[in-house]
Amino acid sequence: MATRSATSNVQFRLAARPIGLPQPSDWNVVAEPVAPPRDGEFLVQLDYISLDPAMRGWMNEGRSYVKPVEIGAVMRAGGVGQVIESRNESFPVGAHVVGTFGVQQYAVSDGTGVFQVDENIAPLSKFLSVLGMPGMTAYFGLLEIGKPEAGQTVVVSAASGAVGQIVGQIAKIKGCRAVGIAGGPEKCRFIVDELGFDAAVDYKSAGLRDALRESCPDRIDVYFDNVGGDILDTALTLLARHARVVLCGAISQYCETGPRHGPANYMALLVDRARMEGFLVFDFFTRYPEAIREMAGWMAEGRLRSREHIVKGIDAFPDAFVGLFRGENFGKLMLEV
Amino acid sequence: MATRSATSNVQFRLAARPIGLPQPSDWNVVAEPVAPPRDGEFLVQLDYISLDPAMRGWMNEGRSYVKPVEIGAVMRAGGVGQVIESRNESFPVGAHVVGTFGVQQYAVSDGTGVFQVDENIAPLSKFLSVLGMPGMTAYFGLLEIGKPEAGQTVVVSAASGAVGQIVGQIAKIKGCRAVGIAGGPEKCRFIVDELGFDAAVDYKSAGLRDALRESCPDRIDVYFDNVGGDILDTALTLLARHARVVLCGAISQYCETGPRHGPANYMALLVDRARMEGFLVFDFFTRYPEAIREMAGWMAEGRLRSREHIVKGIDAFPDAFVGLFRGENFGKLMLEV
Repeated sequence: MATRSATSNVQFRLAARPIGLPQPSDWNVVAEPVAPPRDGEFLVQLDYISLDPAMRGWMNEGRSYVKPVEIGAVMRAGGVGQVIESRNESFPVGAHVVGTFGVQQYAVSDGTGVFQVDENIAPLSKFLSVLGMPGMTAYFGLLEIGKPEAGQTVVVSAASGAVGQIVGQIAKIKGCRAVGIAGGPEKCRFIVDELGFDAAVDYKSAGLRDALRESCPDRIDVYFDNVGGDILDTALTLLARHARVVLCGAISQYCETGPRHGPANYMALLVDRARMEGFLVFDFFTRYPEAIREMAGWMAEGRLRSREHIVKGIDAFPDAFVGLFRGENFGKLMLEV
Repeated sequence: MATRSATSNVQFRLAARPIGLPQPSDWNVVAEPVAPPRDGEFLVQLDYISLDPAMRGWMNEGRSYVKPVEIGAVMRAGGVGQVIESRNESFPVGAHVVGTFGVQQYAVSDGTGVFQVDENIAPLSKFLSVLGMPGMTAYFGLLEIGKPEAGQTVVVSAASGAVGQIVGQIAKIKGCRAVGIAGGPEKCRFIVDELGFDAAVDYKSAGLRDALRESCPDRIDVYFDNVGGDILDTALTLLARHARVVLCGAISQYCETGPRHGPANYMALLVDRARMEGFLVFDFFTRYPEAIREMAGWMAEGRLRSREHIVKGIDAFPDAFVGLFRGENFGKLMLEV
């Protein structure tokens, strides 16, 4: 296999910290020879690279839940691929693996944070979607932070996105009323007709608050927020008593260059004796296997579907990534390498 | 006692819904004959009337946790006084009572929401302060929502105010590091030297964030917020992992006429896996006796003090009330009737 090391590995490296939406000049595209694995390491050939809103935060300097990506480093990203060369017995050649492999075609890993996955359970792309980080985020965020009870109303924003589509379906499985907020009639139809949400609200239409109020006659018990901004502010005005606001993301704010938009209606938390709580899926790492087992069961029963938005070719990375913040993707966004 | 009904009762009635700070023209001062109690009712002569920031919210229209005060109605306020005429066996003449009696000299009540209090435990004014709603707010807000653990850092804003001074002292009793944010050197000295807080931060000085960071070397486990605005935003940047932000009030925002200032740094709740939760002391109503017993015990042991800011005469109401929003009071503000 020594010839592999002569193979060229296309990588996207961070060239500059973006202001607002990332520009092409924020990336350096390089093609390096594939490094051979050392003792204890293995080489992965990537099949799919996950593009997630959180990646925008990793590009900023400053304190956060993980270290910023260094200037000059390969952009951090999740991925799924196959081991093609190995000096680690736990990850033999041929194994399919998911991990944080970066925006590149090949990655060397020592196995830290890497899972083997079984292609017989689901196609590989699903391990970046419903059975991957977005699915885990939906599962633990909704069940552990949102704590929905049967009969309650769960609202999720970015409802046709990677996390949102799973949140609504788990809410239905748990006996809740599921209402999704999405952009445009096509996404709204999808979450109701194909995923079984009870209602969809199009945030691009006028009258978001009225539409949301109509869809939530008993107000909102769990609001799972992926977007922040005006949509969060609107949801806050419709909370039920003892509601839970699950803070998962704030995609409307990640590329803001002006003053950040805090939730002006946050005092609704007092009026409604409600809480707003953030979480990080990584904190539930040891429980991923249990969640994957349960989610795979729901998939097998036809109760849990997911839609992926797959863009071909690693070269499409900069454009596809920027599209995330414009709502251009429809389902979980990933690159097919 | 029938002659009492001829006594004049000075009342402050809401004349108009204020915009921003209440103006003198927002009140109608009237002097009405005291109404005699009917069957099941009793007549209270007020000794002290409580002036609380929350009253500003009760003057606004719109959905909240209690109905707005109607235009023309006596302004809602807590008070303590003595029963001087009674047709209700549970509240005999001579009994000292606390309740929501309004901004007036005399009130007729049927006993709903009224407690008898024992002047032997503490002077009557304390039943509007440490042993009244502010004390209950501090007790249940800190212990039930903030859930501080020994060794953790508790920060409270408006720390020399009615609620803040009690929050910090209970935090100390529970073995926490107590840090208060207050306005000006006099209030800061008071909470450290007289109440035993570990540190005070003067929000009127430059460099609030640096000062707060220095006072909280292990960051903030519980932030008890009475003020909102920039101080809340600053505290959010210093949360410890799994911190609790207790939303008690937002006095900086109650008289804002421009756009409300939401906490722009709210995504710190995600980075720090923290929660922000509102509560209403009324929800703990049935547990007030237990709290009063424990707090009175701490007072008797000299571990819990409180400072009241007593303004003489009901006529001082409009000015004294407005002073609350300018930070002019030093301790729990009340009128001596």
